[in-house]
Amino acid sequence: MMEKYVYLFDEGNKDMKNLLGGKGANLAEMTNMGLPVPYGLTVTTEACNLYFKENNLLNENVQKQILKAVKAVEEKTGKILGSIDNPLLLSVRSGSPISMPGMMDTILNLGLNDEIVLALSKDEESKRFIYDSYRRLIMMFADVVKGKGKDEFEDYLMRYKEKKGVKSDLELSADDMAFIAHAFKKIYKKLVRENFPSEPLLQLMQAITAVFRSWNNERAKVYRQMNNISDNLGTAVNIQEMVYGNLSSSSLTGVIFSRNPANGTDELYGEYLVKAQGEDIVAGVRTPFPIKKLAIEKPKIYQELKGYSKLLEKHYRDMQDMEFTVENDKLYMLQTRCGKRTPSAALKIAVDMVKESLIDEKEALMRLNPDDINLILHKSFDPKVLANKKVLTKGLPASPGAVFGKICFNVDDVKMAYDKKIPTILVREETSPEDIEAMKYADGILTVRGGMTSHAAVVARGIGKCCISGCENVTIDEEKKIMFIDGLKFTGESYLSLDGTSGNVYEGVIETTDFSLTDEFSIMLQWAKKYKRLEVRANADLAKDADLALSFGADGIGLCRTEHMFFEKNKILAIRKMIIASSEKERTDALSSLLEMQTKDFEELFKVSNGKVLTIRYLDPPLHEFLPKTDEEVAELAKSLKVNVEDVYQKIDSLKEFNPMMGLRGCRLSIVYPEIAVMQTTAIFKAASKVLRHGIAVKPELMIPLVGDVNELNYLKKIIEDVALKLNKNNSISYKIGTMIEVPRSVIQADKIAKEADFFSFGTNDLTQMTFGFSRDDAGTFINSYYDKGILKFDPFKTIDKEGVGKLMMVAVKLAKLANDKIELGVCGEHGGDASSIKFFNKLGIDYVSCSPYRVPSAILAAAKAAICEESI
Amino acid sequence: MMEKYVYLFDEGNKDMKNLLGGKGANLAEMTNMGLPVPYGLTVTTEACNLYFKENNLLNENVQKQILKAVKAVEEKTGKILGSIDNPLLLSVRSGSPISMPGMMDTILNLGLNDEIVLALSKDEESKRFIYDSYRRLIMMFADVVKGKGKDEFEDYLMRYKEKKGVKSDLELSADDMAFIAHAFKKIYKKLVRENFPSEPLLQLMQAITAVFRSWNNERAKVYRQMNNISDNLGTAVNIQEMVYGNLSSSSLTGVIFSRNPANGTDELYGEYLVKAQGEDIVAGVRTPFPIKKLAIEKPKIYQELKGYSKLLEKHYRDMQDMEFTVENDKLYMLQTRCGKRTPSAALKIAVDMVKESLIDEKEALMRLNPDDINLILHKSFDPKVLANKKVLTKGLPASPGAVFGKICFNVDDVKMAYDKKIPTILVREETSPEDIEAMKYADGILTVRGGMTSHAAVVARGIGKCCISGCENVTIDEEKKIMFIDGLKFTGESYLSLDGTSGNVYEGVIETTDFSLTDEFSIMLQWAKKYKRLEVRANADLAKDADLALSFGADGIGLCRTEHMFFEKNKILAIRKMIIASSEKERTDALSSLLEMQTKDFEELFKVSNGKVLTIRYLDPPLHEFLPKTDEEVAELAKSLKVNVEDVYQKIDSLKEFNPMMGLRGCRLSIVYPEIAVMQTTAIFKAASKVLRHGIAVKPELMIPLVGDVNELNYLKKIIEDVALKLNKNNSISYKIGTMIEVPRSVIQADKIAKEADFFSFGTNDLTQMTFGFSRDDAGTFINSYYDKGILKFDPFKTIDKEGVGKLMMVAVKLAKLANDKIELGVCGEHGGDASSIKFFNKLGIDYVSCSPYRVPSAILAAAKAAICEESI
Repeated sequence: MMEKYVYLFDEGNKDMKNLLGGKGANLAEMTNMGLPVPYGLTVTTEACNLYFKENNLLNENVQKQILKAVKAVEEKTGKILGSIDNPLLLSVRSGSPISMPGMMDTILNLGLNDEIVLALSKDEESKRFIYDSYRRLIMMFADVVKGKGKDEFEDYLMRYKEKKGVKSDLELSADDMAFIAHAFKKIYKKLVRENFPSEPLLQLMQAITAVFRSWNNERAKVYRQMNNISDNLGTAVNIQEMVYGNLSSSSLTGVIFSRNPANGTDELYGEYLVKAQGEDIVAGVRTPFPIKKLAIEKPKIYQELKGYSKLLEKHYRDMQDMEFTVENDKLYMLQTRCGKRTPSAALKIAVDMVKESLIDEKEALMRLNPDDINLILHKSFDPKVLANKKVLTKGLPASPGAVFGKICFNVDDVKMAYDKKIPTILVREETSPEDIEAMKYADGILTVRGGMTSHAAVVARGIGKCCISGCENVTIDEEKKIMFIDGLKFTGESYLSLDGTSGNVYEGVIETTDFSLTDEFSIMLQWAKKYKRLEVRANADLAKDADLALSFGADGIGLCRTEHMFFEKNKILAIRKMIIASSEKERTDALSSLLEMQTKDFEELFKVSNGKVLTIRYLDPPLHEFLPKTDEEVAELAKSLKVNVEDVYQKIDSLKEFNPMMGLRGCRLSIVYPEIAVMQTTAIFKAASKVLRHGIAVKPELMIPLVGDVNELNYLKKIIEDVALKLNKNNSISYKIGTMIEVPRSVIQADKIAKEADFFSFGTNDLTQMTFGFSRDDAGTFINSYYDKGILKFDPFKTIDKEGVGKLMMVAVKLAKLANDKIELGVCGEHGGDASSIKFFNKLGIDYVSCSPYRVPSAILAAAKAAICEESI
Repeated sequence: MMEKYVYLFDEGNKDMKNLLGGKGANLAEMTNMGLPVPYGLTVTTEACNLYFKENNLLNENVQKQILKAVKAVEEKTGKILGSIDNPLLLSVRSGSPISMPGMMDTILNLGLNDEIVLALSKDEESKRFIYDSYRRLIMMFADVVKGKGKDEFEDYLMRYKEKKGVKSDLELSADDMAFIAHAFKKIYKKLVRENFPSEPLLQLMQAITAVFRSWNNERAKVYRQMNNISDNLGTAVNIQEMVYGNLSSSSLTGVIFSRNPANGTDELYGEYLVKAQGEDIVAGVRTPFPIKKLAIEKPKIYQELKGYSKLLEKHYRDMQDMEFTVENDKLYMLQTRCGKRTPSAALKIAVDMVKESLIDEKEALMRLNPDDINLILHKSFDPKVLANKKVLTKGLPASPGAVFGKICFNVDDVKMAYDKKIPTILVREETSPEDIEAMKYADGILTVRGGMTSHAAVVARGIGKCCISGCENVTIDEEKKIMFIDGLKFTGESYLSLDGTSGNVYEGVIETTDFSLTDEFSIMLQWAKKYKRLEVRANADLAKDADLALSFGADGIGLCRTEHMFFEKNKILAIRKMIIASSEKERTDALSSLLEMQTKDFEELFKVSNGKVLTIRYLDPPLHEFLPKTDEEVAELAKSLKVNVEDVYQKIDSLKEFNPMMGLRGCRLSIVYPEIAVMQTTAIFKAASKVLRHGIAVKPELMIPLVGDVNELNYLKKIIEDVALKLNKNNSISYKIGTMIEVPRSVIQADKIAKEADFFSFGTNDLTQMTFGFSRDDAGTFINSYYDKGILKFDPFKTIDKEGVGKLMMVAVKLAKLANDKIELGVCGEHGGDASSIKFFNKLGIDYVSCSPYRVPSAILAAAKAAICEESI
C-alpha cells in the first residue's frame, strides 16, 4: 500500500502528533469533536523528512495526495481553489510534533491572484480588504517562500503613507491598496527575478516546501538545541480554509487560555483584537483588549468561546491555549494546545486539577517540571524595601519573578555581561524569534509593545524568565542604546528592577528575597514525598541553611562543608593562624581556638537537625584558599599574628600549587596534618554529646573527602575511632564513617573501600572533573567550542554524564554493594539537585541525593517523578 | 610428628633457603659437598616466626631441639660446650632467606667464661688471644643481645691504650687483655644491671633470641622496605664451631668472588687480612691485601681456595661470594652465596656464562635487572675532559660509574640536597648499616677506609651507586663537616667528581657523557629482542634523540611531542606570535612560518626513522607554557612582535588557568584553534611526501592527545583526512590515526573511540594523575606523608598502579579489542620504561611501549623477561 502523506482534518486525531504535528493533530481532534474549525488538510512530518531525503524536492506521490485532499476541501467548503467566482483561500502553517512557538513561518491568503482579486472587489470596502490581503500575500511569499525579507515592502508602504500624509494603514483607501499591491508585485519581481506566481496550486506547493525548509532555519535550530528537540522530527504543514478576523468590524481574532497561565486561577483568560488577523496579536503590533471585554461587547460569542474552552480542557485534561477568529460574528476555533504556564501557575493548575478529579496525584507530579519548581523559590522583592521604592512605570505582568539587571539592548551586550556574571534586563521594542538567544541569557525582559501572549511573553514563560510586556510609555533607541521612561533617560550602564508578578518597573537594584511557600507547594511536596524512593538531603554548612532546607522537606543534611564555617571574620583568622603556624605549639594553639568555634557550630547544626542525619565532611579545600588575597589583607593578617609581612607572603607562596584541584586537599590535608582531623572529630563528638544531653537525638555521619585508596580511609578512621574511644565511651552517640567517591581510583577500588565504609557519597563535581580531565574553573576557554562543534551536547557539570561519569558510578555501586550490602550510597555533587541526573541516580540504586537548600523541593519532585517512571516500566 | 625447628649442617641443602636462610642452606650444601666447613646447626626461620608469635619467648620444643643438635656438634667436633678442658666455642650468625648484608647481628667466641678463659691461658700468646676473644664476646653481647652499644667499651679501650701510650691493640700484652676483659665485665654489669652470663648454654639461648629480635631492628626494616622484602620471612640462626683467623700469624681471613664483581672478568677476586677475624674485613678496620698476594704467600692454600671457588660456581651456576678463614694454615669455608655485582659485571658474567654453557640465553636474561642495565648507560666521564683534569687522589674502584656532587657528611645533608635536586657525594670514614638511607639518596660514595668488600662497597654495588672506598689519604671531620685531601680543605659547599671505574677522585664538577656499547651489551640486546613480544619504541622529539634511540634497538618512535620542537629560539618566537595574534590574519601568518619549520623537523625525523613507525602527537601543552616568564622576555617579545608590553601581559594573564593540567590543552587546543591541527597535518604530509620521494619509506602514526569522547577524535580526524585528501592524493603515504588514552573518560568510552581509531596509546602519566587526582607537580607536599604512613607503598608515577590505573587500562583494552580487533595498543607514559610496569603491560596484551631513548635497552630486556616469565607459566 502506498504510504499516506496527507490527512484531511476528519481523518486524524490528537494522538497523531508525531505524524500530523501538534497543531494538525489538535485541529483534527477539534473537527471530530464537532467544534467550528475551518476545514483543511495536514501534510505529514514524514512528507517533510522525505522532502529532505530527496534533496529538497517534493515527492510526486505527496503532490498527488495533496491535490486529492484539496479536492476534498473544495467539496466540503463548496469553494474552488483558483476559481474567480468562488475562490478557496487558504492559510498554510507549520506544525511540528513539539510546540515551537514563533519558530516556523506562515502564509495567509494563499489562492489570490490578479484576476481573483479583481473579481472579489465588489465594493470599496471589499476591494480595500482584498487588495490589502493580496499585498500581504505577495510580501509574505517574497519573505517566507523566497527568503527576500519584508524590508523593501515595508519601506515602500511607509513612504507611501508619508506621501499620502497618513499614519495608519487604516487611513489608506481601496485604490491605495490596489496601487500598493501592484507595486508589491513589481518589488517582488525585482527581488525574486521572476513574476509572482498567479497559479494558486503553484503558490500552494511552493508554500508547503517553504514550510518544510523553515524546519531547518537558524532560529528553529537554536530553539531545538535549547530545548533538546531532535532534528529528525520534521514539521507537518496545515492547510486550512482562511477565515478573516480582519474582514469587518464584526470580525476579530484572539488568543485564550482555559486558565490563567500566569498564576493558574481557573478563569477564562486571554485577549483579542478587533479587525485583525491572529498574527497581529502574536507580533504585538497593537495592544489587544482583555478577553473580559468580549463578555460585554459580544456576550454570546464569549459564552460560546467559554464553553469550548471548558470542553477542550476537560477533553484534554489539561489547561488549553486556543486561537480563535470571529468572521462577521461567526466564531471559528483555529487551534488548541496545552498551554504554556509559569511555574507557579503550573503548580496551582496541577494541584487544582487533582482536587477536581481531572487527574490523579501521580499525573499531577509528572506534569511538573522540577527545574521550574526551582524557579518559584527565588523570585520576589522584599515588600518592605518595595514600599519605599517609586514605581517607574508599569507594564503587563507577562511572566512572574523579581529580577534586577543592567540594561542591555541586544544579544551581544547580554552575552558579554553574562560572561562577566553581570545580571541583565533585555529591553526591546518587541521581541522576535531572533531574540531567543538574548532572552536565554538575560535575567529579565522588558518590551514596549505586545500583550500577555506576545512572543516575548510566551517565550519568557516557557523558559521561566521574568518578563514585563506592553510597557507603553517606554521609548527605546536600540541603535544609540538609550531608553526613556517618562522622559527619564537610561543607558546601557543603568540598572532596572522588574517585578514580573505585578508588572512594576523600578529604577536601580532591588535585591530579591526568599519566597513564602504556598499551600499548593506544600501539597505538591507531600505527594512527592509519598511517591519518591530516594532520600533528599541538603548541602548546608550553617544552621540557618540547614533550617531552611529542612523546612523545604529535606530528609537530613547530606553535606556540611566544614571549611565554609571558617569564612567568618574571627574564624578565618584562627584558621590562618593555624596555616601560618611555624611551630607545633602555635599550630596547636590555633587549633584549640578553632575547636571551640567548630564545636559551637556543630552544636547549632545538631540542634537544627533534630535527630535527622547530619553528614559532616572533613576539611577539604587547599589551604591557600583561606589565605588573604590582597596586600591590605596580608598586612592585616601579619599585624594580627605579630609576624613579618614577608613571612606571610612566603607562606602564601609556599602553598601555591600548579593544579590545586589535584594537590594538597581533601583527606590529604588531614593525613599530612592529622591534628586537623583530631580537632574536627573532637568538635563533632563534643557537640553531639552536649546536644544529646539536652535530649535532642543526633545522627552524625563523618565523611572523608577525596579518598582514592582504602589506606587513606583507614588512617583517618583510626584517628576518628581513637577520639571516639575517649569522647563517646558509652557509645551513646551512634555514628557512621564514610567517604566521598570523587576520584576515579576510588571507583576502581570501591569494593575495598566499601568494606571499611558505612557510606559512600559520590562527589560528582570532582568525579566529573577528573573523569573528563576538565577543570571546572578553566573549561570556559574551550567548552563553547565543544558545544558549537557538537562535540558536547550538554554541560556535564549540570547534568550527569551518563556515558562516562555515570558508568563509573555504576561500577562503584556494583562493587560497593557486593562488598558491603549494608552500605549507604549518596550523591552530594551539583547533580544531586538536577532532575535528569536524579532520574539516573534513582535507577542506579543510590539511597539519597543531597543538594543546596533551594533545590530541595525540586529534587523531591524529581525523585518522585523518577520513582513513578520506574514503577510504570 | 613434632615440627623440626633445628637442622644440623648435614641435614639441609641449598634449596632450603626459606627454612634455613641463605647462609644456612649454603653451609649445609657445602658440608654435603665435602668442603671444609666448621660443623654446626641452623635454627629455622619458622622458629623465628614462632618466637614472635609467642610474644618473644623461645619455645620449649625449639630449645630442646637446639640442645640435641648441640650434642651432635659436640660429638662431631669432640669438643664440649662449657668444658674447661676442651671447650666448644661457637659463632652465632643470622641468615635470612634473602641476603641482607650487614643488616643482622653476629656474636663470636660464644662459650667463653672466666673459668674456661683461665684454663685456656696456657702461655702469654694464648692468654693474650683468649682474653682478647673474651673481651670481644662481652662487648658484643652487651651490644647485640642487651642493646647497650659498644661505645663505653671502646672508650675504655681507647683510654686504656692512651694510658699505656700505645696505638694499636697489637701492642697490648696478655695481662692488659685480661685486665680489659675484667673491666669489660664491670662495664657490662653497670650497663645491663646484671652479671655477664657465665653459663655457655644461657649465652647461646640469649644470642639466638637476640638474632631473632634483630630481624625487626630499624636498619633491617629500612633495608627490607627499600628492597621490597616481606617482613614475614623471618631469619634463621646459624650456630657453628668457631675457627680463628686471628689465632696466629699463620691464620688469616678473607672474602673472595669467583669472578670480578666490578667488571665481571673471570678471575679469582677478593682480599684477606692476616691475623684477623672476618668481621674486620667487612667493617673495613684495616685495608686488606688483594687475594693475588695469597698466591705468593701461601700458594697451596690459594690453589685449594681457587678450586673450591670454581667448584662452587659450577655447582651453583652463578658467580659466588665466599668467606673463608685459615686457622693455623688450615682452610675453612665459612660461607658461599651468589655474589652481588655491578650492572656491567652482571652483564658480562651472564653473557660469558652462556658462552661457557653454564646457563642458557633465557636464564642469562632473567638474571639481569633492567633497572641496572639502565644505569650502565649513563656513567662515564669524557676522556678528553679527563685528560686535562688532575687526579686529586685515588681509592679502590668499589662500584663503577662516574658522578659529581656536592660533598655531604651525613644523611640529613644528603636528603636536603636530594630534595633540591642537587647531586651529592656522601663522604664517610667508613659506612655502617646506619648509612644505608644516605647511600640511597647520594649520587656517589667516598670512604676513607674499607676494601672492595667493605660495607660501603657491597651496598653501593647492590644499589648500583658509584663508590670509591679505601681512599686513605683523605681525612674527614664529620662533626665540623670538613675534609682534607692531601692537605687541601673541602667543605660542604665543595664539589667532587668520582670515577668508580678507576677509583680516581677529581675536584669540582666533571660532566658525564654517553657511554659506548660493549659487545656484551649488544649480545644481550639481540637475545632480548629474540624473546620479547612487546615492541619497544622511543619517545623522541628531535632527530638526534630518535637516532640515539634507534641505535639502542628501538623498534620505532612511539611518541614525538611536537611542542618540544618549538622550544628553539626562532621557533618559540613563531609560536608566541601565533598565541599573541589578535587577528585571523596574524595567526595565519604565524602558523605559516611554523609550518615551514615543522615540515623541516618532520623531514629529519622521517629520514632518521627510515621506514620505522613515527608516532606524532599533536600539540598538547597549555599555550601559556610557551609564553615568556620574565619581564625581560616579555619586553623582548613585545618588541619583536611590535606590540605593546601591556598587551603581552594581558594575553599571558588571559591564558592563566587555575588547573592547567585540566584546562585548554591536548586535543582541546586543536578543537578551539583548528588551524593548528591543519598546520601540523600539512607539515606531516609535506615532510612525508618529500622524504618518500627520496626513496625512504615513511610510517606516520598521527596521535590526538587527551581525547575523552569520540566526537573529539572525529572532529580532528575529519581535519586530518581533509588535509590528506589534498596532500596524499594517490595514497602513497599510508598513515594511521589514533588517540591517547589518558583521561578516565576515554577508558569508559574506549569501545566507541576504538571504532574510530587505528591505535591507542596509553598516556599513563596523565591517566595516573586523573585517576588518583594527584597533580604530579604538587604531590610532593603530601606524598612523603603517604609513604611514611604506609598509605602508598610505591610511586605510582614510576611504577604503574596495577590496582587502580592498571584496572582502568584492563577495561580499556577489553573494550577496545571487542570493538576493533585490529587496534594497535601502546603505552607512552613514563611507565613505558619501567620494568615492573612492562611486565604488567605484557600480560595486558599491549602491543608496544615507548620510553625515553636511554631507557630503550632496559625496556627491551624487561620486555624479554616479561615474555619469558609468561611463557613459563
